[in-house]
Amino acid sequence: MSENIHISNLLKKLEEKDLDGMLLANFNNIYYLSGYLSTSFAFLILKENPIIYVSGLDFELASKTSSIPIKKFESFEELVKDLKEENIKKLAIEGDLSVNHYLKFKDFELEVSNIVDIERMIKSDIEIAKMTKAVDIAHKSLIELDVRSKQEQGWEEWACAYELGRIMRANGGEIESFDTIFASGSDTSLPHSVPRHHILETPVLVDYGCKYHGYCSDTTRTFIFTEKQEEISNIVLEAHDKAIAGIKSGMKGCEVDKIARDIITEYGYGDNYIHSTGHSLGLDIHESPSASTKDKTILEDNMIITIEPGIYLEGEFGVRIEDMVLIDKKAKVIGNLPAIL
Amino acid sequence: MSENIHISNLLKKLEEKDLDGMLLANFNNIYYLSGYLSTSFAFLILKENPIIYVSGLDFELASKTSSIPIKKFESFEELVKDLKEENIKKLAIEGDLSVNHYLKFKDFELEVSNIVDIERMIKSDIEIAKMTKAVDIAHKSLIELDVRSKQEQGWEEWACAYELGRIMRANGGEIESFDTIFASGSDTSLPHSVPRHHILETPVLVDYGCKYHGYCSDTTRTFIFTEKQEEISNIVLEAHDKAIAGIKSGMKGCEVDKIARDIITEYGYGDNYIHSTGHSLGLDIHESPSASTKDKTILEDNMIITIEPGIYLEGEFGVRIEDMVLIDKKAKVIGNLPAIL
Repeated sequence: MSENIHISNLLKKLEEKDLDGMLLANFNNIYYLSGYLSTSFAFLILKENPIIYVSGLDFELASKTSSIPIKKFESFEELVKDLKEENIKKLAIEGDLSVNHYLKFKDFELEVSNIVDIERMIKSDIEIAKMTKAVDIAHKSLIELDVRSKQEQGWEEWACAYELGRIMRANGGEIESFDTIFASGSDTSLPHSVPRHHILETPVLVDYGCKYHGYCSDTTRTFIFTEKQEEISNIVLEAHDKAIAGIKSGMKGCEVDKIARDIITEYGYGDNYIHSTGHSLGLDIHESPSASTKDKTILEDNMIITIEPGIYLEGEFGVRIEDMVLIDKKAKVIGNLPAIL
Repeated sequence: MSENIHISNLLKKLEEKDLDGMLLANFNNIYYLSGYLSTSFAFLILKENPIIYVSGLDFELASKTSSIPIKKFESFEELVKDLKEENIKKLAIEGDLSVNHYLKFKDFELEVSNIVDIERMIKSDIEIAKMTKAVDIAHKSLIELDVRSKQEQGWEEWACAYELGRIMRANGGEIESFDTIFASGSDTSLPHSVPRHHILETPVLVDYGCKYHGYCSDTTRTFIFTEKQEEISNIVLEAHDKAIAGIKSGMKGCEVDKIARDIITEYGYGDNYIHSTGHSLGLDIHESPSASTKDKTILEDNMIITIEPGIYLEGEFGVRIEDMVLIDKKAKVIGNLPAIL
C-alpha cells in the first residue's frame, strides 16, 4: 500500500495524534482510499496494513475493485476481536458514523477526526480533470436541452429534469450528482424545490450536475423573462462575479461569503439570501470547506468550491447563479457556460 | 397535535421508559410525523408540544407542509438551551443519528431508541394503498418497457434503466425508490450491479421500484434465455413461492428466511445465496423487520415485506425474483405481475 500517498499521509497524521488506527464507514471515504465503492456496508480499518471488511453481497465487486485487501464481514464481535488482537486501543472515527455503529466500538477510546475530509479538500490533477469533465458534460447537456424552447413547448418540470438526465448520460455522465432541481414560477423561491408534474412557468431555475468517474459537477442557471426578474438577476450576477473576482488563496471561506452577502444586502435583499455562498465538492456534492458566514477555513490552491448567490422572494420567484471555481492563487471558473442563458 | 395517533403512541412509549423526549433527525421519521420532508437538515423534538427546528433554506417549505409547529434553527447551543429550559434530561435518539450530532447533545442522558422504527413497521390502510399504487405503477411500467424487445434492439443497460424511470414518472411515480439495477450477462451475478454503457447481454436482471406519495415499491424480475438459466430460475421461483406460501403472521423473520434458504441449499446452491430473503419497506426502501437469518422479530398483520431469493454464479450469471407481500394472517402478494416474463 506504500504507493498510496493518501494512506501514508493519513497514517502519519494518526501517529502524530497518537491514534492506533481509524475506522471508516463512509462509502466515498473508502472509495477514495481503495477504489471500491460499497453498495451495502463496509468498514475500512486504516492502520499499517489496512483492511476492508465487506458485506457478502459486495464480495465479488470488492475483490475486483479494491486496492486494499478485503475480508468478509461476519459480525461486529469478530471485527472488534480482530482490532483488539492487533492491540488497537485509540481509534479515530468519522463524524458521520451512525450512533448504532459508534456504540459497537465502545470498548475502544474513540475520537472523531476529520483527517480524511481534510485530505480530500485538496484535489489532485486527476481529480481536477474528472471534475472539469463532469462540468463539461453538464454544461453541454444544458445547452442541448434548450430550456427556453422546452418552456415554449409547454414541457413539465419533471420531464425537463428527466430529459436533462438522459442527455447527461448520453454525453458520458454516470448519474446526477444530486436530484436535479428544475423549478419554475413561484416555486423558484424554494432553494431545494422538487420538480413537479406541472407545465413550466417563468422564470425557470435549473440547479443540477452529473458525476464523472464518481466526481460531481454543480451548476445553476435561472432563465429570466421579465424586467423585475432581470433586475434581481443583475444583483445576483454582480454578487456572483465579484465574489469570484475577490477570491485569493489564503482567504477564509467566510470572507468569500461576505463579499456576495454584502452586495445583496446593499441592494436591500439581505434577508432574501437564505443560504451560504458556496460549498466545496468532489466525490460528495457537499464537502469542506464552505463559503458560509461561519466557516473560517483558509482557502488553498487546488480546492474546488461553488459560488452560488441567490435572492428568494417568497410567493414571487427566486434567482440563483452558480458556478464551480478552482482555486489557483485566484479563482478560475470551470467551464464557459454563459451566466445568463 | 392530539389528532396525530403516531405522536400520542410515541409519547406514551417515552413516558413508559421514563424518557423526557426524543430528538429526531431522520428525514423520513420527521416526514412520517409531520408531513414535512426536509431537503437539508431538521431536528424534531418529540415532547408534549412537539416542535421542528428547520434550516432557513427549508423555512417556506416547512411552513407550508408541517403539521407540527416549526422554528428556525439558529445553533445547537440555542437548541440545547431550549431543551434544558423545558427541563428535559433524558432524551431518546435514533440509531442512525451521526456522531457529530450525538456529541452536540452530550449534556443530556441519551438513549438510542427504535420506537419510531417500530411505530412505522405496521402500515395503516392509507400507507398500504400508497404502496399498492407504487407497485401498480412499477409493474405497469416494466410491461410497457418490454425488456425482451429492448434486448433484441440492442439497447444499453443504462438507457433501459433510464427509460424505465421515465415511464414510471409518466405513469405517476415520483422518483425511483432506489437506483435501478438493470444488469445483463455475467453482471447479473452482482446483486447490486450498476447499469453500464453496455449493450444488453443475457440474462437480464431488473431490480427496481418507484415512490408514490413518498412510499416505495420494490420488484425484481430476471429475463432468462437458456436452459441452464431456466433450471436456476426454477429453483429460485420455488424458494420464492414456498416462502410466500409459508408465511403466517406470528412467525419470525428468520423462519421465513429459512424456508427459502433451505430450498436453495437442498439444490446445492446454499453458498450462492449471498443475501437475506427479504426486508420490510415503506417510506424507506429498507425498514424493519427483515427476513434474514438473524432477525427474530415476529411478523404481524399489516407489515409489508419483500421476498427476494436469488442464486449468484460468479462469472456466469445470477437470478433473483422479488415481490412485495402484505401480511394479513397469510402473505398476500401485492400486484399481479407474472414471476417469469
